[in-house]
Amino acid sequence: MEPQQMFVKMALQSWDAAVKKMTAVFDGLGDEHIYDAIAPGRNRAIYLLGHMVAVHDRMLPLLGFGDRLYPHLDEVFINNPDKVGTSMPAVQELRDNWRHVNELLKEHFQELGAAEWLQRHMNVSDEDFAQEPLRNKMNVLLSRTNHMASHMGQLALIKAKMVSIT
Amino acid sequence: MEPQQMFVKMALQSWDAAVKKMTAVFDGLGDEHIYDAIAPGRNRAIYLLGHMVAVHDRMLPLLGFGDRLYPHLDEVFINNPDKVGTSMPAVQELRDNWRHVNELLKEHFQELGAAEWLQRHMNVSDEDFAQEPLRNKMNVLLSRTNHMASHMGQLALIKAKMVSIT
Repeated sequence: MEPQQMFVKMALQSWDAAVKKMTAVFDGLGDEHIYDAIAPGRNRAIYLLGHMVAVHDRMLPLLGFGDRLYPHLDEVFINNPDKVGTSMPAVQELRDNWRHVNELLKEHFQELGAAEWLQRHMNVSDEDFAQEPLRNKMNVLLSRTNHMASHMGQLALIKAKMVSIT
Repeated sequence: MEPQQMFVKMALQSWDAAVKKMTAVFDGLGDEHIYDAIAPGRNRAIYLLGHMVAVHDRMLPLLGFGDRLYPHLDEVFINNPDKVGTSMPAVQELRDNWRHVNELLKEHFQELGAAEWLQRHMNVSDEDFAQEPLRNKMNVLLSRTNHMASHMGQLALIKAKMVSIT
């Protein structure tokens, strides 16, 4: 395997592991604990689930993979903070969205060669990209993997609480 | 720049950005808020500071960069959970350790070529590495970058609290 393919494979492995871990946590909370907050007065798990779907959904056009699937989620889960009483989609719908968007991303990821990962993402113009070649698709992948890790660290606070109670 | 060098540069950029952000948060908490917990009954920022130093210090031998600087931190910050009343080093000492270990890692990182990033890390034998070539130094870098992001997500809960109070 060529060195550049090794790097891509590792970045994808890191992404996959984070998606798997996060899915396990959302599933593990069940429909009972999905409304638990990560800490008193903080985001609830259901909000973070919707937020994660919306952020990953935004990666579709950003990486040139096509149109978004769930743009209606932005208003509640990106543009606004979590607020008890806000109308949200059903939990099961969000769980299905989460699985589906990640499956779709994975399919597209597997079709990209190493050289394509180094091409610009769609929020940077050709002119700017010529000056800043690191604003590429791989950069989006690394950044969104960190984004998942950040919210995983928060969700772990709920998980720890459940473990310590039982 | 060769593709493999681009990938290394991006991974390092992601690491650097996380270190910078985390340092800014630890500095921003000051000596007053460094004993704040990320949530009631959860880890205090001071514990996470010591934990981060210890984990990054462990990267020195793991990546073949030499001996550890602060192995004495493991007992309090790795082997045990945070506990009020545990004797800890002075805050300023931990802040200095954090800066120093990250500077040292950065110096070593800059000396590694792309091919060296794909060499085994020190916790895997030559035999196992032959079967599992992804257990390399780059994998450690990506994994520890995610580890930082995870705890950053938790520290952000303190920061948000401070902002909302003031």
